[in-house]
Amino acid sequence: MKIIFLGDIVGRPGRELVKTLLPELIQQYAPDLTVANGENAAGGFGLTLEVADELFHSGVDVITLGNHTWKHREIDQVLDRYKQVLRPANYPPETPGESAGLFVAKNGYPVGVLSLMGQVYLEPTLDCPFRVAKEQISLLKEKTPYVLVDFHAEATSEKIALAHYLDGLVSAVVGTHTHVATADERILPGGTGYITDVGMCGPTDSVLGVKKELAIQKFITKRPVKFEIAKGPVELNGVYLELDEQGRTKRIDRINYRKNLK
Amino acid sequence: MKIIFLGDIVGRPGRELVKTLLPELIQQYAPDLTVANGENAAGGFGLTLEVADELFHSGVDVITLGNHTWKHREIDQVLDRYKQVLRPANYPPETPGESAGLFVAKNGYPVGVLSLMGQVYLEPTLDCPFRVAKEQISLLKEKTPYVLVDFHAEATSEKIALAHYLDGLVSAVVGTHTHVATADERILPGGTGYITDVGMCGPTDSVLGVKKELAIQKFITKRPVKFEIAKGPVELNGVYLELDEQGRTKRIDRINYRKNLK
Amino acid sequence: MKIIFLGDIVGRPGRELVKTLLPELIQQYAPDLTVANGENAAGGFGLTLEVADELFHSGVDVITLGNHTWKHREIDQVLDRYKQVLRPANYPPETPGESAGLFVAKNGYPVGVLSLMGQVYLEPTLDCPFRVAKEQISLLKEKTPYVLVDFHAEATSEKIALAHYLDGLVSAVVGTHTHVATADERILPGGTGYITDVGMCGPTDSVLGVKKELAIQKFITKRPVKFEIAKGPVELNGVYLELDEQGRTKRIDRINYRKNLK
Amino acid sequence: MKIIFLGDIVGRPGRELVKTLLPELIQQYAPDLTVANGENAAGGFGLTLEVADELFHSGVDVITLGNHTWKHREIDQVLDRYKQVLRPANYPPETPGESAGLFVAKNGYPVGVLSLMGQVYLEPTLDCPFRVAKEQISLLKEKTPYVLVDFHAEATSEKIALAHYLDGLVSAVVGTHTHVATADERILPGGTGYITDVGMCGPTDSVLGVKKELAIQKFITKRPVKFEIAKGPVELNGVYLELDEQGRTKRIDRINYRKNLK
Ligand SMILES: [Fe+2]
Ligand SMILES: [Fe+2]
Ligand SMILES: [Fe+2]
Ligand SMILES: [Fe+2]
Ligand SMILES: [Fe+2]
Ligand SMILES: [Fe+2]
Ligand SMILES: [Fe+2]
Ligand SMILES: [Fe+2]
Repeated sequence: MKIIFLGDIVGRPGRELVKTLLPELIQQYAPDLTVANGENAAGGFGLTLEVADELFHSGVDVITLGNHTWKHREIDQVLDRYKQVLRPANYPPETPGESAGLFVAKNGYPVGVLSLMGQVYLEPTLDCPFRVAKEQISLLKEKTPYVLVDFHAEATSEKIALAHYLDGLVSAVVGTHTHVATADERILPGGTGYITDVGMCGPTDSVLGVKKELAIQKFITKRPVKFEIAKGPVELNGVYLELDEQGRTKRIDRINYRKNLK
Repeated sequence: MKIIFLGDIVGRPGRELVKTLLPELIQQYAPDLTVANGENAAGGFGLTLEVADELFHSGVDVITLGNHTWKHREIDQVLDRYKQVLRPANYPPETPGESAGLFVAKNGYPVGVLSLMGQVYLEPTLDCPFRVAKEQISLLKEKTPYVLVDFHAEATSEKIALAHYLDGLVSAVVGTHTHVATADERILPGGTGYITDVGMCGPTDSVLGVKKELAIQKFITKRPVKFEIAKGPVELNGVYLELDEQGRTKRIDRINYRKNLK
Repeated sequence: MKIIFLGDIVGRPGRELVKTLLPELIQQYAPDLTVANGENAAGGFGLTLEVADELFHSGVDVITLGNHTWKHREIDQVLDRYKQVLRPANYPPETPGESAGLFVAKNGYPVGVLSLMGQVYLEPTLDCPFRVAKEQISLLKEKTPYVLVDFHAEATSEKIALAHYLDGLVSAVVGTHTHVATADERILPGGTGYITDVGMCGPTDSVLGVKKELAIQKFITKRPVKFEIAKGPVELNGVYLELDEQGRTKRIDRINYRKNLK
Repeated sequence: MKIIFLGDIVGRPGRELVKTLLPELIQQYAPDLTVANGENAAGGFGLTLEVADELFHSGVDVITLGNHTWKHREIDQVLDRYKQVLRPANYPPETPGESAGLFVAKNGYPVGVLSLMGQVYLEPTLDCPFRVAKEQISLLKEKTPYVLVDFHAEATSEKIALAHYLDGLVSAVVGTHTHVATADERILPGGTGYITDVGMCGPTDSVLGVKKELAIQKFITKRPVKFEIAKGPVELNGVYLELDEQGRTKRIDRINYRKNLK
């Protein structure tokens, strides 16, 4: 089983890059499933119907989300229409939308995908991701050995601890949210693939995708600043995973691509 | 000017690894200055006289610190004795110890080093690192074009924003504290070398150096757990920097080394 | 139904004051049940067997707890021995001890008491108190119309919102944790008695019970300071509640008593 | 010297109440100076020219602010026009507006007023209020023995510690921001009047002034909710202070007034 996972796609620059580059990556890696975090895809925050459609047309099979899920009201329609758009599982039980699902990969096998959010340094405060993960994963594991978790979280301690907690239970835990790719991709002792953060798909010369002058201004003045998405060169960050028939990761490679789009 | 910077050295396993590996790295890279973050060097938290001496004997020239600076009372003696041990600059003005200094490199030129801490998601809350950095750097720049900043911080946004803020003013901004190496090393438009986090020197099969079972237990039970340093394989993480005569970074390479010590 | 509730009892000075004053209050108010928050009773943090016994001998019927519950390991034995010691209900399901119980009041009727902790600005991050409260309260309400909730929380918004959420469902929501008595005691439209914080029982000339010089030192230096319980004049803070037969609060009076103990 | 201080005035309901009630209070107490926190006066957040004028016409002499200072862009004009509108002093040095001032009271004597914000649990993170307070107060004390500090902060520990730190240096430290009046008004050993929070002027049947259903909805769903100011009965909260000729507080009385406006 071969999977590509792309980190938080940021605004139009991120989407344009995915539209250009993902088809090439699909040719190169021939993934059976392509998953991407879309929490910043619509104008830098949240997701809309049109933007979800655009990502699907670019080759994304499943979209995961994060703390910016509810930015646009239209997200309710997105979650209603597309079972392959997943909001974090540890929102309250009565929250709209799906947070986990089984998706038929190109090789015909089902892959479980779980969207999950951290509790440390993140707003809002959701239920314990450790407990919710175990509950959701046991349901997915009844149907398939292939399970991928997008853990959208800030603190490295929480991300690494969750990965060890799920080691041997799931195929891979991939981190998102910090928008910075980490260099710690590895296979844990129990066979679970792991990376603390895959990084984002968006403008390189920026602060997490935001115009750097505006981000600096906020830190310097301590006053509110309206953020805008940066322009200029872009980068795509993700991982490529190969799983064996027991669902264990055999290979995890970072995909870190910087490009000058015109 | 060639510099090696090593991330947070964690406990005895981290120190042993540095003792073994740093001499080899010094042979390989022939750095003019070697700087390391030592905030976790003594038993996982803080620094003592004996541990500082051990790091100096291993080849470290300058030690920077972070939020765990004050764990052992002996730190007052360490700061008093060694001007090459630097605590973060944005502690209150009357805080003991130095936070910046000029150190004569092996090539005879002085290099300014600044220890600085972030405000976002970090305790305690120190003064604005952006303002303090500018003040300290202008003093160092009167004496040398070579200035290295260890920005000990949690949030990727704060780290990247500070680096852009100082771009062109300092030789390099290297991040520490998250204990996870990032894959975003680069040279900013103004010539400042940057990496969000260099990662740690310590046990690999762990949660930031701590025994993984204990870290997981704390997340699961929400009750206090006494942490211990993990055993087993270790890793060394840092960066190698080459600066031109104007103090701009010409080259920044990650050093990510995993080893099975016996 | 008449109830006295006392806020966080802080260390020996708080316990001595309760020993002296509670019998007088019991004479004066003739409560059917006396409840006190004991999270700071043993040395300023946590609870031990000896300290719990001392509080029971002073006239306390039920002890609630908070974020300092697990300070002393002996708490496991306390929780095991005394069903009338309650730790916050929104700790993980497998946590030792009881968090809610039915206690026979002096008038022969059962009173439900629930210990609950907030999520805002408090460590650790527990499950959503709103959801957990509803679950626990529905169980208690099967047995009695009299239900008292100790909501141990920091943010005024969370405390007031929870009280409105439970208005009409429980007899009273009394806040603890800030150690400062608020002046907003009232009966909400649905009949639930409410006060944002009842305050503490401990040393007056202090910072939340801690020697003021030490607390100031920590704020000024941003370095770790070992806290000690303050000496000198003490104060007792609580509320007196009168409930009607439907369990609604008819009367809520603050008890704020300052005394020079010798 | 007699001073009235009113807590955070919340939106139109708060302003209407102040317009009705403040003239009566001025008759009753004959204050030499009336100060009010106006950070929530315009639509629940921030301050505008029109709203500032309205508060001055109602009898307010000096307006202090807090974390919501910059909600409306018009605040720059307000701060530019009115030296008697004060934003917190620990914003960065280059921040627009005044944070402290000397104001001639009705008895002809000057009174120093300082607006200050806490660092604990509050966004944004400003400079250390302890240090900034001492600096600002020493300037005011050169001109007058009468100095009032509005400490806009969340944590009771930070508020009480600051008051003890300034005890004997200033006439009074009055807390704002939590919107809940505390019952701990007192005169500290050095003669400084103190209350942890004076409470707000706004709708009673609400969560800090916000419609209770909306505040509850946010806590329950963990999703964004647009807040609106509540309707119905209103309350005014403040303190009355009497200072002796050395500037020490001789008397501090809470003003807690609940009214059904039609
Ligand atoms: Fe994101
Ligand atoms: Fe995010
Ligand atoms: Fe560290
Ligand atoms: Fe650190
Ligand atoms: Fe307490
Ligand atoms: Fe507490
Ligand atoms: Fe306010
Ligand atoms: Fe505020």
